[in-house]
Amino acid sequence: MPLGEFELIDRYFKRPARRAALGVGDDCALLRVKPGMSLAISSDMLVEGRHFLSTVRPERLGHKALAVNLSDLAACGARPLAFTLALSLPSADPDFLADFATGLFRLADEHDCELIGGDTTAGPLNICITVFGEVPVGAALLRSGALPGDDLYVSGQPGHARIALEVFRGTLQADGEVFETARMAMEMPTPRVELGLALRGIATSAVDVSDGLIGDLGHILESSAVGATLDVDALPESALLTQLPPSLRRQFALAGGDDYELLFTARRGDRQAVVDAAWAAQTPVTRIGVIQASEGLRLVDGRGCPERDIYARFDHFKT
Amino acid sequence: MPLGEFELIDRYFKRPARRAALGVGDDCALLRVKPGMSLAISSDMLVEGRHFLSTVRPERLGHKALAVNLSDLAACGARPLAFTLALSLPSADPDFLADFATGLFRLADEHDCELIGGDTTAGPLNICITVFGEVPVGAALLRSGALPGDDLYVSGQPGHARIALEVFRGTLQADGEVFETARMAMEMPTPRVELGLALRGIATSAVDVSDGLIGDLGHILESSAVGATLDVDALPESALLTQLPPSLRRQFALAGGDDYELLFTARRGDRQAVVDAAWAAQTPVTRIGVIQASEGLRLVDGRGCPERDIYARFDHFKT
Repeated sequence: MPLGEFELIDRYFKRPARRAALGVGDDCALLRVKPGMSLAISSDMLVEGRHFLSTVRPERLGHKALAVNLSDLAACGARPLAFTLALSLPSADPDFLADFATGLFRLADEHDCELIGGDTTAGPLNICITVFGEVPVGAALLRSGALPGDDLYVSGQPGHARIALEVFRGTLQADGEVFETARMAMEMPTPRVELGLALRGIATSAVDVSDGLIGDLGHILESSAVGATLDVDALPESALLTQLPPSLRRQFALAGGDDYELLFTARRGDRQAVVDAAWAAQTPVTRIGVIQASEGLRLVDGRGCPERDIYARFDHFKT
Repeated sequence: MPLGEFELIDRYFKRPARRAALGVGDDCALLRVKPGMSLAISSDMLVEGRHFLSTVRPERLGHKALAVNLSDLAACGARPLAFTLALSLPSADPDFLADFATGLFRLADEHDCELIGGDTTAGPLNICITVFGEVPVGAALLRSGALPGDDLYVSGQPGHARIALEVFRGTLQADGEVFETARMAMEMPTPRVELGLALRGIATSAVDVSDGLIGDLGHILESSAVGATLDVDALPESALLTQLPPSLRRQFALAGGDDYELLFTARRGDRQAVVDAAWAAQTPVTRIGVIQASEGLRLVDGRGCPERDIYARFDHFKT
């Protein structure tokens, strides 16, 4: 039996309002922002075949749809507060919706992030989440604060999601365990919210790595009007990546896409503070380069010799 | 030549940040909310074939995508501040984007509403806007405040958009001028922002009419735990509607959908205040019924005799 739009909202997405003055079910949600706080806002749209495959389990899809948005808050050092969900569905399939809601709310509850409104409609599968976080005025991590001499860091192990994508595409083979681990990276990314919070006052700039490390590093370099040297031999190793040929390993780490790691800079004198923040957030962080005044990105190996490979940025309109 | 995602954002949607501390182009936008103000938030997703037809001009589509969101702010009595835009496009067509942006920003500028962030991706055409407005704490118009004895009002002339839809569907014929006027109602709705602001402190409840007058009245009745009697002979007349057979005229006015008018209640003693608010907002308003303690909706004619027709609600999953 097809569900109407309102029954659908009620059954799967209506929960009692908490911090919002008014939650799902009026024309608007009402949100109060504490004095001295800015609201950090980000919106991401997920489309089948581009941000997820039709094979993904709805529960993981619910997780990922929110995770990619929380990752944007993390990159600003903002604490998650709330989100809206707009959902276009080919049909109001109760099994899909129940599973989707399970994955979505599990991650939302982990971060105490409340669903405060949204929209549902019939149409090609499309998920658009807008997320709200709070950050003290002036304390947000921006892309524009990197300074010459700063160290460059990345969290986690970028490249894993791309392994899974290439296995799905049929260009790569991987044994069961490797594939499952890579698939989890692709379908269940962990937004680095705690790391973003721990880096307030320490990171001079930050961006979330969603389009490939080099592409997103480009945003920091452009916004900060600086350049960088990146040591490709310093990139985080992993059991998964070392199974790949060296050229692929680097390509995936530098331009894989869908990583949702934090790429950030910090003063050289703050190395211990970065280690402490990573420890506090229980998130691995690797120093991979240095910011310089001269514009452009230089890739070098561990001996400082230039690397000549060119890595394309992962652009949602180009690949 | 296909445009990449970032060039696309830059070319058509990047403008200097105004009130947002940080606009398009970082991981998050940062918004400050004035002391004593709540943020009103609403999110609407528009899908081709459901919320607009493939024949719509991109400029009008840009207008409508924002208008339906501003209508939600209007229904809360909130003043527009900013919005995010997430856009899924089959291709990055420069003509489409330039025209879409023209219609979008013209309406945005009329309401001093700033684009502060968003997302673009390739995929089936889908437009998701999340809009932000401010309203003094405690002053928002809600669905839940209607009291027995309150008058029931509607703005404008609900039903016009449905005339155009039925002409497009081929179930109705209309001469050129009638069709153009109806088509403007469908494709270029006017969000009743000024009326919503003028009704602060006067309306006891409000909702925007997007799913048909009766359907949306149901939200007020349910949220307020009241009933109503609606005089169908009091519904606003118009040159367009009077050209229809009486039964269609009523059906379109009561359950047409896509109207984006305000439906609201006010104390009987505030009739002059409502007239003054309508005048101040330069928006026609018609008194069409009364709120009662006994639940349910009763349709009567001008003599108070029950109407027996049943009008279906316009539900985006059912029609």
